[in-house]
Amino acid sequence: MSATSVIPRRVDRLVELLPENGLDVLLVTDLINLRYLTGFVGSNGLGLIGPDTRMFATDFRYAAQMAEEVDSSFERRELPRNLFADLEEVLPPGQLRLGYENSMPVRIHARLRELLPERVELVMADGLVEGMRAVKEPAEVDRMQAAAELADLALEQLLARGLAGRSEHAAALELELAIRQGGAEHVSFEPIVAAGPHGALPHATPREVEIERGQLVVIDFGARLDGYCSDCTRTVAVGEPDLDAREIYALVLEAQLAGLAAVRAGAQCRHVDSAARDLIAVAGHGEQFGHGLGHGVGLDIHEDPRVTQVAEGTLVAGNVVTVEPGVYLPGRFGVRIEDLVVVTEDGCRILTGVTKDLLVIE
Amino acid sequence: MSATSVIPRRVDRLVELLPENGLDVLLVTDLINLRYLTGFVGSNGLGLIGPDTRMFATDFRYAAQMAEEVDSSFERRELPRNLFADLEEVLPPGQLRLGYENSMPVRIHARLRELLPERVELVMADGLVEGMRAVKEPAEVDRMQAAAELADLALEQLLARGLAGRSEHAAALELELAIRQGGAEHVSFEPIVAAGPHGALPHATPREVEIERGQLVVIDFGARLDGYCSDCTRTVAVGEPDLDAREIYALVLEAQLAGLAAVRAGAQCRHVDSAARDLIAVAGHGEQFGHGLGHGVGLDIHEDPRVTQVAEGTLVAGNVVTVEPGVYLPGRFGVRIEDLVVVTEDGCRILTGVTKDLLVIE
Repeated sequence: MSATSVIPRRVDRLVELLPENGLDVLLVTDLINLRYLTGFVGSNGLGLIGPDTRMFATDFRYAAQMAEEVDSSFERRELPRNLFADLEEVLPPGQLRLGYENSMPVRIHARLRELLPERVELVMADGLVEGMRAVKEPAEVDRMQAAAELADLALEQLLARGLAGRSEHAAALELELAIRQGGAEHVSFEPIVAAGPHGALPHATPREVEIERGQLVVIDFGARLDGYCSDCTRTVAVGEPDLDAREIYALVLEAQLAGLAAVRAGAQCRHVDSAARDLIAVAGHGEQFGHGLGHGVGLDIHEDPRVTQVAEGTLVAGNVVTVEPGVYLPGRFGVRIEDLVVVTEDGCRILTGVTKDLLVIE
Repeated sequence: MSATSVIPRRVDRLVELLPENGLDVLLVTDLINLRYLTGFVGSNGLGLIGPDTRMFATDFRYAAQMAEEVDSSFERRELPRNLFADLEEVLPPGQLRLGYENSMPVRIHARLRELLPERVELVMADGLVEGMRAVKEPAEVDRMQAAAELADLALEQLLARGLAGRSEHAAALELELAIRQGGAEHVSFEPIVAAGPHGALPHATPREVEIERGQLVVIDFGARLDGYCSDCTRTVAVGEPDLDAREIYALVLEAQLAGLAAVRAGAQCRHVDSAARDLIAVAGHGEQFGHGLGHGVGLDIHEDPRVTQVAEGTLVAGNVVTVEPGVYLPGRFGVRIEDLVVVTEDGCRILTGVTKDLLVIE
């Protein structure tokens, strides 16, 4: 994907959305939105986007990076490190409704209110760019597919070597290395490797504790490629699992397949969540599935849309979401199975390719 | 350092500061402040701290982690994932000035204003906890010292193997691994390894480009240990450097030593910056040192105090700051030399131990 080719179209689309959101110009400072709209990957920059405004600014440290990365449709400026001090000068004249992102820290918002004159009305742009990002372009899906395939391979390498007798921490680090040496720019988050009772913590941190035979191990991992994240979870058995473990595994898998079957353009997010959750609840484990079924993924590992019991949205084609039910039995074990899927008109396409049969490994 | 021993004292100190900051109770949601004040290391939680209030809440995913990590002086609750929905119920009764951190996203602030009744006045606590964090306790300095030593060893391992013919990316990954396998919980940021002209970008991302003989290589790296970060930069020569490189190196080192000599309790931050900057400016390279001299380090890699030309603060004993002048010659090379130091009454103690003589390696 050539970033430079897609950016002017994204910016044009954003400009079309400004009037209906009550905005003349949008100030972009969220680093992920900034990457999406300008191509810039550094950690201090701002964009101003309006019908007649395409301005990007960063400080000394990133001047060369700006020249390389920021789309040439933008006017590019180097400003003092506090980019806001001179903001007024570069704003269009006259009365102006200036949008700011909902992720802006209140400190910056207060600063802007002090610095900018009365003629500038500050208006929260509540999820405007995030809404655009939630619907992926085909080239974005291709990146996520490639990231997912790379992560799949890394998991297969890890499992082939066996897990018994190795620490969660060592296994997680090996998985991370396999992902990064396999061509990813990074992991999309620190891999989780959680064995036995530790797997009952949905967000476990890998420990210096040996994985034992007879344990289930939850492995949650992803790769980042050109900024785009993948996300996948598999639960594997080290040595022969007991019947309870097999039963819970079968239940979570059944719920996961039901969740996948409910995904399509037009489906209400909460209904997709219910499709999986109801099966788990009927089996008596509803209380042990305490998180949402899934979330959007893209340049960020958690983004719109959310697929939860309280989500109000509806899926559209091009959304990329996780489907990841889990059952967590405190003090015993946990099972989570997660795929990353792209929503299509009549269903979904799964980007994560590792088998979901219960793998019994060494 | 046992987190549980220091936390009640930190919380007591914070409570003493509330009245003079116009606050009855502080709502803590910033994850680093939350770790500092409660011990919690997860990624969704809130704290409420007031004279008669010590409350911590998280969601299902972190319930077990809360039980392990959060100091027992806190009442601990499990709430729905959107922790704010039930916030009113757990607030003290009556008129209440509720502080919120300046890093809070405007979205959350707007949400709180909607959810909370009139009796609750929301007041920005502008850097209150950050100000406490800026003055380290002895045990915090010990952690940072240990992190710095661990990072020193990792750099020495990297340099011993030589850099010529290896890519920046491979060298950076090896350095990261050495830090993590050496006992750190993580790197404190992605290491920078930037050779030749790439070293002229102060925030370069390591590339898949081979390091060549005759190049200077800027290496900026750190370890995180029990949450505490270290930060160090060395510039080394791969093969014999030319005279210009030696001259700029000597200039930056002289400036760095002058900066260090200016550090002491009571010194104005901007004067410390000037002590180093003036030497570089007199040598005709002022325009090529475009960033501040240093920044505070602790649980966060960039925190208070800032040591820049526009900083308004004064150093106090217990601050831990970097001293890191640089000269960047676009298209040619860059030199940066950085130490991490703890401010004392009569000077500073350097935590980073790698030699600052210009190393010429293979």
